[in-house]
Amino acid sequence: MTNARATRRTGLPGRPGYDLDSLLAVAVKVFNEKGYDGTSMDALARGLGITKSSIYHHVSGKAELLELALARALNALFAVTTEERAVTGPHIDRLEYLVRRSVEILCAELPYVTLLLRVRGNTPAERRALARRREFDDFVSGLVVEAAAEGDLRPGIDPALTARLVFGTVNSLIEWYRPRAGGSSTALADAVVALVFDGLRRA
Amino acid sequence: MTNARATRRTGLPGRPGYDLDSLLAVAVKVFNEKGYDGTSMDALARGLGITKSSIYHHVSGKAELLELALARALNALFAVTTEERAVTGPHIDRLEYLVRRSVEILCAELPYVTLLLRVRGNTPAERRALARRREFDDFVSGLVVEAAAEGDLRPGIDPALTARLVFGTVNSLIEWYRPRAGGSSTALADAVVALVFDGLRRA
Repeated sequence: MTNARATRRTGLPGRPGYDLDSLLAVAVKVFNEKGYDGTSMDALARGLGITKSSIYHHVSGKAELLELALARALNALFAVTTEERAVTGPHIDRLEYLVRRSVEILCAELPYVTLLLRVRGNTPAERRALARRREFDDFVSGLVVEAAAEGDLRPGIDPALTARLVFGTVNSLIEWYRPRAGGSSTALADAVVALVFDGLRRA
Repeated sequence: MTNARATRRTGLPGRPGYDLDSLLAVAVKVFNEKGYDGTSMDALARGLGITKSSIYHHVSGKAELLELALARALNALFAVTTEERAVTGPHIDRLEYLVRRSVEILCAELPYVTLLLRVRGNTPAERRALARRREFDDFVSGLVVEAAAEGDLRPGIDPALTARLVFGTVNSLIEWYRPRAGGSSTALADAVVALVFDGLRRA
């Protein structure tokens, strides 16, 4: 069984084995299905249809795969925080831009963001990821504080709670969103932005 | 170790052992920490500091504990759908009431709702719970449809997507909400309702 799968996978034309990216993609899938703690290098090798030594050719072990996968999600999210529309203009617009781009990144990098959001801090790599998530949350809270100071938010809004609720809405997408071929995340981002900024109720 | 814990727990005055409710509370805690699939009856007995046969005195096994725990969360949520304010008046107000009460129930029954929201459908009890969750979601979508028909929602809102996003916001609370002694969930419910119905942006 393992051999048959190895042959099938490694036998594709122009695909003599896994490169690091495709190795990572499969590893993240297995982590999301079984949990990181519950995934052994043996299970990973089986899931990939290759030997453990083929994995060690790319990484030092499953901890490095986790680190790389979490970094991919975090780097994508942090990249937004320095994009022009996230650092110029009224803070409510920066916040809106950040929410929109976060939805898009969640959709584009779904398995990686899913893994990131399920991290519980059991290993050093996970604790570093949680620390970076807090840094991202602080950036969001900062935008909410500034938007309130500029008079653009409804009064009585608690910035930290608001940041949590808004990103709770965004992050909840991992529970049901599944990308479709040729689909776009724009309509979904529009719906999230409309709900968060304008609410459901007709003014 | 196990004996010492058993003695400590069963030796409390007026608490000669576990009744079904306290057994369930500990079982749900273990399920949430280790996952239902990853929890054996042995691990449950260790967590409770009692023998497996003491557990079998109350239930037929861990599947029954899961069923009871999921029913507790589901029954609390479904009870709201027949409360007066959920079945009378404009549908936007019914929806608001349902959102508010769902936050309160999530806070009051946090471990049970957490377990419910993590169910993936690996066993018959889990699949029944998922079916009842879909029934609850349909009730919510129905309120959104009616509220739109009554002209109380902003135009262009997709009912099923809206129901998902709104309950995504509510359900995301399990990721960070932790009850405090003497605390109330009213302020949190207020914040969720304000965000969902009126949005962040000053009108």
